[in-house]
Amino acid sequence: MSHADAGLLARDLTDQRALLADRQISSVELVTQTLAATAASAGAVNAYLSVDADAALAAAAISDARLAAGTARALEGVPVAIKDNIDVAGAVTTAGMGTRRHSVPAAQDNPAVAALRAAGAVIVGKLNMHEAAMGADNANPFYGDCHNPHRHGYTPGGSSGGSGAAVAAGLCAAALGTDTMGSVRIPAAYCGVVGLKPSWGAISTRGTVALCRRLDHIGPLARSARDLPVLLQTLAAFDPDCAQSRPIHFLPAQTGALRIGVVDFGSAAEVDADVQAAFEDGLRVLAGLGHQRVALPGPSFTSGQARRAGLLMCEAEMLIEHAEAWGGDRSLFSPLLVKLMGWAEGKSAADLAAASLLADRAQVQLQQYLAGCDVLVMPTAPQRAFAHGSPVPASQADLTAYANMAGNPALSVPLPVGAGELPIGMQLVGRIGEEYTLMALAQAFQQAVGHVAALPAAVKEWWP
Amino acid sequence: MSHADAGLLARDLTDQRALLADRQISSVELVTQTLAATAASAGAVNAYLSVDADAALAAAAISDARLAAGTARALEGVPVAIKDNIDVAGAVTTAGMGTRRHSVPAAQDNPAVAALRAAGAVIVGKLNMHEAAMGADNANPFYGDCHNPHRHGYTPGGSSGGSGAAVAAGLCAAALGTDTMGSVRIPAAYCGVVGLKPSWGAISTRGTVALCRRLDHIGPLARSARDLPVLLQTLAAFDPDCAQSRPIHFLPAQTGALRIGVVDFGSAAEVDADVQAAFEDGLRVLAGLGHQRVALPGPSFTSGQARRAGLLMCEAEMLIEHAEAWGGDRSLFSPLLVKLMGWAEGKSAADLAAASLLADRAQVQLQQYLAGCDVLVMPTAPQRAFAHGSPVPASQADLTAYANMAGNPALSVPLPVGAGELPIGMQLVGRIGEEYTLMALAQAFQQAVGHVAALPAAVKEWWP
Repeated sequence: MSHADAGLLARDLTDQRALLADRQISSVELVTQTLAATAASAGAVNAYLSVDADAALAAAAISDARLAAGTARALEGVPVAIKDNIDVAGAVTTAGMGTRRHSVPAAQDNPAVAALRAAGAVIVGKLNMHEAAMGADNANPFYGDCHNPHRHGYTPGGSSGGSGAAVAAGLCAAALGTDTMGSVRIPAAYCGVVGLKPSWGAISTRGTVALCRRLDHIGPLARSARDLPVLLQTLAAFDPDCAQSRPIHFLPAQTGALRIGVVDFGSAAEVDADVQAAFEDGLRVLAGLGHQRVALPGPSFTSGQARRAGLLMCEAEMLIEHAEAWGGDRSLFSPLLVKLMGWAEGKSAADLAAASLLADRAQVQLQQYLAGCDVLVMPTAPQRAFAHGSPVPASQADLTAYANMAGNPALSVPLPVGAGELPIGMQLVGRIGEEYTLMALAQAFQQAVGHVAALPAAVKEWWP
Repeated sequence: MSHADAGLLARDLTDQRALLADRQISSVELVTQTLAATAASAGAVNAYLSVDADAALAAAAISDARLAAGTARALEGVPVAIKDNIDVAGAVTTAGMGTRRHSVPAAQDNPAVAALRAAGAVIVGKLNMHEAAMGADNANPFYGDCHNPHRHGYTPGGSSGGSGAAVAAGLCAAALGTDTMGSVRIPAAYCGVVGLKPSWGAISTRGTVALCRRLDHIGPLARSARDLPVLLQTLAAFDPDCAQSRPIHFLPAQTGALRIGVVDFGSAAEVDADVQAAFEDGLRVLAGLGHQRVALPGPSFTSGQARRAGLLMCEAEMLIEHAEAWGGDRSLFSPLLVKLMGWAEGKSAADLAAASLLADRAQVQLQQYLAGCDVLVMPTAPQRAFAHGSPVPASQADLTAYANMAGNPALSVPLPVGAGELPIGMQLVGRIGEEYTLMALAQAFQQAVGHVAALPAAVKEWWP
C-alpha cells in the first residue's frame, strides 16, 4: 500500500469532502478503494453484512459528474454505510436477526438514509450489529461476530459494532448507528471514533426495526468531531410520519468557558482504573482549554435499577415488534434473547409502568445535573473493549443509558491512549437541543490532543 | 345584585387586570366578591373543594399595595383557582379521591402554581374534579358532584369539572386544570369557556397526582381567548426536576390566511346533530375571517382502539401511583375505578407496550393531518353536557385524546349557541410549539362572534 492511499481512507469526512471538492480525488476512486478495503477486511473485521458495489460506483460516478459541473451537494461523493436495522431501499433489513434473514427488502429508505442520499453521500452497504440491537458486543451467531479493527477477537462494542468498526478501519467516512442505551457511543468509544446520539426525536427512526421507541435514536459515527455538524444538519428533520419525531430547536454552540460537570459515581459505575486514568487526563485537557470543573454528587438510584428498567422496556416492545417470529421457530433467536423475551412475557403492565417511572427518575437526574453545569462529562463506557467469549460486563451501558432515558444529546470522543492500546471514549452530555455545544467542545478537545484518531495497525493489510 | 357588580365577576381576566391596573377596583374588593359568590354557589355548583379565604385576602392586600406602588406583576391581584390534583403548599391534594382525603398537605406549590403566585395572582382555593382525573363527568362520590353552572344537575365535564364551572360562574378569573385525554378542553366546552392544553412538557407537572405521564398536561381555563397568552407566558418553563418537562420553542402566531383542516370522521366520531350544526356555523365564521378549509380523510384506526389504549396506559400507571391505597380499603375507590384498575391488573407488559404503539399511531395521524394544514379544527366533544346519572357517552374524549397522544397544543373555544342552550366547544389543534397561532385564531373567532361567553343565568343568585 502506498502511504498516499493509506492516507485517503484514513482521512476524515471533512478532508475527504475537501479533496473531492478540489478534485484532487474522484468519488469513484475513493469508493473503489473503500470497496477493496471492505472486501480485504471482511474476514478480519466483518463490518459489513452486505455491500452493493454496483450501486455505490454508479452513485459515485454521478457525484463525480456533479463535482465537475459545480453542482455538488453537502456530502457529494463521500462513502457512508448504514447499520442493518435501518431501511435502505432494496436491501433486506436484517437487524442482525436470524428471524429476518429472508424478510422482504425495504421498499424505501429510512428518512435519514434518504437525506444522506439527497446530500450526495454514496451508500456503500449495510453494517453488522448485535442481534436486534439488544446487546453491546456484536458477537452475532447468525451473521458472524464483528471484530474490533484495533484487535482481532475483541468486540467493537455495540449494538452498532459494524458502524464503529467500519469508521475506525476506513471502510466508510461516516456511518449511521442506532442508540437505545448507548449503541452508537459504546462502539465509538471501543473503536476510537466519534459518535453522536442527538436529542430524542431529532432524526426520524421511521423505517427502522425498533427496540424501544422511547429510547431509540439514530446517530452518526465519524472519525473526527469536526465531521459531525454537517451530518447532523443533513440528518435532523421533523418527520410527521414518525411517532418518535419531534421538532428540535438547535441552539448555537455556547462560547467562552463552560461549566464541566463531573459526577462522583464512586465505585458504583465500576469504572476500570485505566479508563478512569485516561478520563482524568481528558479532564485536564478540558481544564487547559479554560473550562471549569463542577463536582456533582452521585445519582439517586442504582445503575442496576435503571438497567433492569431499560431492559424490560426493550424486551416488552420486542414481544410486539417480533410477535410473528416469536410465535415461530425459536431457534432463529439466540438463546440469550429467548431468555430475555421469555422473562418479559411474565411481566405485568404495572411492571412496565414502573420501569417507565424509573426511566423518568434517570431523566430527572440528568436534567438536574445539567441545571448545575453546561456539559456533563464522564467515561463513555466503564471498560475498554473485551475479548469475544469473555464475560460481558453488566455495567457496559450504565453511563450511556441516562441520555436515552432523558432524550438528551450525548457524544463520545476518543481519549488519548498509548500506542497499540485499545481506545477509550469520553462522553459529553448536553441539554436538549445543545448538540452544537457538544460538537464544538469535542472538536476543540481533538484539536488540543491531536486531531485524527489512532489508526488500527491492521489497516495496512486491508487497504489497497 | 347590582349590574356593575355582576359585570365585575363576569369580566374576563384581561378586563380585570385593566380595572386593577387603573385602580378602578381593588384586588381585595374583587377577591371579596369572588369569595362571596363561591360561598353562595357552593350548594348549586360545588366548584371548590376548599377555599382559603384568609390567605386569598392577605394576598389581595399585598397586590393592592403593589398596584398602588407601581410594582404590579403580570397577574397582580387577579383571583385564580387550582384543580385539586395539583399541589398548592399547605393544602391537601385530594385528586378528588377518597383515598387521599387525609393525605399530608403539600409541602410546596407545583411550579405552575408557584409561577402564578410569583406573577401576583391570588390563589382562592382548590377545585372539584373527577375522581383521580379518570373520567370526564365530575360526578364525585367522595366530595359531591360538581354541577354545570349553566344547568344544575348537569355535568360540567371533566375531569377538570370544577375548573370549567368556576371560570364559567365567575368564581375566579382563570383556573388550572389537567388534561390527560381532554380534561381541560371538555369542561371548557361544556361550560362555555376557553381551555388550552399546551404542548406536552411546556408546563411542569411536578407536584401533581399523575394519571398517565405520557398523556398528562396542565393547562389554563379562562373566559376569553385573549386571556390565554399571559397565562401561557406565566406557566410555561422548563423544569429540570420534572421528568415530563421539555424545552418548548414557541413560534410566533402565523399571520395571514390559514389552512384550516377538517377531518371527515363520518359517523365514527358519534357527533350529535346539534353539535355538528354549531361546528359548521363556526367553520363559516373562520371562512369569513379569510381562512381556507382543507378536507382531510378519516383516521387510519378506530376511536375505540385509541380509547382502550389510552385507558390502559392510565390504569397501569394508577396501579403504581396509588399502589399503597390499592392495597388497602377498596371502598375508598369508586366501584368503577376498582373495576378499571382491576382490569389493568390482568394485563401484561406486552399489552401495555402495544397500547403505547397505538398511541404512537394517533400521534402520527395528527402530525400527518398537520402536515397538510396549519390548524386542525373539530368539535371539542361529540356531545353537549348531559345530566348526572344518565349514561356517560363512551366517545366523550375521542376527539380530544389525539392531542394528548401526540403532545400537540389544542384549545377549546365556545361556539355561538342559542339563549339558554348548553354550550358547545370548537377545538383548534396545532403543531408543537404553535400555541400562539391557536390563541390568535381563537381570539379572532371570539371577536367575530362577540367576545364574552354567555353568562349562566343562575349567576344572579350567587353574585353579591
